[in-house]
Amino acid sequence: MRLRKIKDAGLKLREYSDYVVYDPALNFGRWHNVFANSNPIFLEIGMGKGKFIIQQALNYQNINYIGCEVEESIVLRAARKIPQERINNLKLIICNALDLDKIFSKDEIMKIFLNFSDPWPKNRHERRRLTAPEYLGIYQQILCENGEIEIKTDKRHFFEYSLLQFNSNQFEFIDVSLDLHNDKRENIVTTEYEEKFLAEGKKIYYLKVKK
Amino acid sequence: MRLRKIKDAGLKLREYSDYVVYDPALNFGRWHNVFANSNPIFLEIGMGKGKFIIQQALNYQNINYIGCEVEESIVLRAARKIPQERINNLKLIICNALDLDKIFSKDEIMKIFLNFSDPWPKNRHERRRLTAPEYLGIYQQILCENGEIEIKTDKRHFFEYSLLQFNSNQFEFIDVSLDLHNDKRENIVTTEYEEKFLAEGKKIYYLKVKK
Repeated sequence: MRLRKIKDAGLKLREYSDYVVYDPALNFGRWHNVFANSNPIFLEIGMGKGKFIIQQALNYQNINYIGCEVEESIVLRAARKIPQERINNLKLIICNALDLDKIFSKDEIMKIFLNFSDPWPKNRHERRRLTAPEYLGIYQQILCENGEIEIKTDKRHFFEYSLLQFNSNQFEFIDVSLDLHNDKRENIVTTEYEEKFLAEGKKIYYLKVKK
Repeated sequence: MRLRKIKDAGLKLREYSDYVVYDPALNFGRWHNVFANSNPIFLEIGMGKGKFIIQQALNYQNINYIGCEVEESIVLRAARKIPQERINNLKLIICNALDLDKIFSKDEIMKIFLNFSDPWPKNRHERRRLTAPEYLGIYQQILCENGEIEIKTDKRHFFEYSLLQFNSNQFEFIDVSLDLHNDKRENIVTTEYEEKFLAEGKKIYYLKVKK
């Protein structure tokens, strides 16, 4: 589901300076200063319209959340969804996932969420998948010791691919579900996509791994 | 699906001396002599009524196949299914999977098949699952370098459990499918269970790992 670009998104984003960090690489190695606390930092790569990360930030106030997206328009949509009351543990950044190791220093992130990432189903686009080896190498750099990655997707082939990649890149599997919403699990925070797929009766695949 | 016990199964098995190896531990370290060739040996643990292993042996004559089951009655049912013409690359053994390291020496097996193993769904029976750590340790012993294990099942929780166990016990994932028969794969040899589950529209989960 491609979203329409918003005209002057970059300019309009300036209104959200409480949340949007415009030049994130400047905070390399000092993100705890940005949040003014030493709480763990969780990162969602590809936050889309932001429902998941905003809800997480509201639910778990002693964790710092950073949402990232490559397009200004999408970050703007997410920023617009943030409720009126001030959320102190949430920041949004515009960046390409391949640059994350220039934005976060070694061990700066405790958890990464990959929710309904673009599956890039064609073989020739394999390298663009957010669970391709090049990306996993970057995640390994920015994740702290025992740092975790959680992925959710409805795309079978993308999930199968991710299982193989996480295994062969030395991640330890912590939890897996091939039908997340039919397990008896509590406190599942859903994304916009997830709500849509659930309404269509699709199964959601889930994997949690540890560095 | 429990099969009815056959009366005097042990005695009746004596008719199948071409195929049934009655005291398999005597061949420890010398199974290639039993087959009188140096072809690789593939082992199915829990062969059930034998459709899969008999068909494999017929399809791939330069591979040696051994089927194992813990109950004499089931081995007898499999033996009775072997067609009239002599199959030189097939043996059946009666044994508990926990004794496999007393029957096969280090590196004697090139591939293990676990087809539709009992899922033992209750947590307190976890240790009985054929992909529990104790079993995986035995497989690692009898498998040769780069030896493989292939599992097929329709049981989601058993498959999820197996993914976690194979990962945490240092097996390398080679191939995975969460809907084997909807992938474009060729030469899939099915089991009795598999035929039944496919007819019911169930999905078959598949994993191939390497030591």
